Amino acid sequence: MKGLFITLEGGDGAGKSTQIRNIERFFRRKGLVVVHTREPGGTPISEKLRNILLDNENSEMDPVTEMMIYAASRAQNVREKILPAIERGDIVICDRFVDSSVAYQAYGRQLGDMVEEVNRHATGGLVPDITFWMDIDPEAGKARAAKAGDLDRLELEKMDFHYRVYEGYRRIAEKDPDRVKRIDAADTVDNIRDHIYECLEELCRSKGI
Amino acid sequence: MKGLFITLEGGDGAGKSTQIRNIERFFRRKGLVVVHTREPGGTPISEKLRNILLDNENSEMDPVTEMMIYAASRAQNVREKILPAIERGDIVICDRFVDSSVAYQAYGRQLGDMVEEVNRHATGGLVPDITFWMDIDPEAGKARAAKAGDLDRLELEKMDFHYRVYEGYRRIAEKDPDRVKRIDAADTVDNIRDHIYECLEELCRSKGI
Repeated sequence: MKGLFITLEGGDGAGKSTQIRNIERFFRRKGLVVVHTREPGGTPISEKLRNILLDNENSEMDPVTEMMIYAASRAQNVREKILPAIERGDIVICDRFVDSSVAYQAYGRQLGDMVEEVNRHATGGLVPDITFWMDIDPEAGKARAAKAGDLDRLELEKMDFHYRVYEGYRRIAEKDPDRVKRIDAADTVDNIRDHIYECLEELCRSKGI
Repeated sequence: MKGLFITLEGGDGAGKSTQIRNIERFFRRKGLVVVHTREPGGTPISEKLRNILLDNENSEMDPVTEMMIYAASRAQNVREKILPAIERGDIVICDRFVDSSVAYQAYGRQLGDMVEEVNRHATGGLVPDITFWMDIDPEAGKARAAKAGDLDRLELEKMDFHYRVYEGYRRIAEKDPDRVKRIDAADTVDNIRDHIYECLEELCRSKGI
C-alpha cells in the first residue's frame, strides 16, 4: 500500500500547527507512521536554503531568486524525504507546498505562470492527496502572527501583498475543489478538528486505508 | 550607449581565468569600465548559494535541486549586478552562465529541456553578446584541474559525465555559431589571446564601440 501526502496551507496565524498535531493523532490511532515535514525546509540541504530565504539580512533578494530557492528546497524535500516515505506506505504531512509558492509568488509577488511551470519540474508532478486551506482574513492572520512575536521578512510585507496572496489561495481552492478543502480558521479549534477528521475519514475510505 | 555582456565557458582547467584577465585588459585600454562576475555567485545572496552548491558535504543533493540553486543564483546575479552594469554602459565579463547549466545539468546530469525552460525565467531572456567556449579535451582538462589541486564535488564526477558535458558544449556551439566562439584551449596562451582579441574587435565594430 502506498501512503498519503497531506498538505496544510494558509497565511501565518491561521492555526496550522495545532491542526497538524491533530492530523498526526488521527493517523497514529490507525497505527500508521506519520512523517512531518515543512516548506521551505525538511532536509539538511533544504534547511540551509530556508535560512537564506528567511534571513532579514537578504532584503536585496529578487522575487525570481526567491521563487527559485523555494523550488530548489522543494525539489530536495520531495526526492529525499516525501517520495520515499509515501513509497514505504507512510502518511506525509507537509506544512506548506506548491500552493504556497503559487499564492505568495505568482499572486503576491505577481510573477504569474512561471511559478507553476518551475514547480512542475521541482515536484516532478507530485500533487497532494488532500490539502487543507486554513482560510483566515489577512488582517486577522497578521494580527495573530504579530502577537506571537513571529514576523519574519515575508510577514513584514505590506497588506496589499497579503490580500493578493489571499486571492491566490481563493482561486487555487476554486480551481481544484476535490483536492483543496477550505477550513474556516475563525471557527473553534474543536470544530476545525472535527471538520478535518471528516475529510480524512472520507479520504481513507476512498483509498481503502 | 549600452554595455556588453561577455561569457566564458568550458570545463575546468581550460584556462578561462587567464583569458578573462586578457579580455579585461582589452576593454580597459579602450577606457571602458569592466565588471567581473562569476557563476555560481557574484552577489552576496548568490555566494551563499554557491557555498551550498560546492560543499562536498551536500552529496545527497538531487540533480534537480542543484539545477534550481544554480538558476536562483543566476536570477539574483542578473538582476542585482549584470543588468544594472550593462545599463550603465559597462562591459560585464561572466565566468560561466546559462550554457554551463545546459552542458552540466541538461547533458551531464541528463535533465533535458527543463534546464533551458527554468533558466529562461532565471535570466528574463538575457543572452550574452559573445561567448568564448574554451574547448579542451575532457581528459586533459581534468588532469590540469587535478594538478592545480582544485577538485570540488562536481569535478570528482566520473569521466562519462565529463564526456556528456563536452557533448553539450559542442551542440550549444553548433546551434548558435554567431554568439559562441570556439577557442582551441590546447593552443598557446598568446595564440588564444590573439584569437579572442580578433573576435572582440569584430564585436566592437558591429556595436559601434
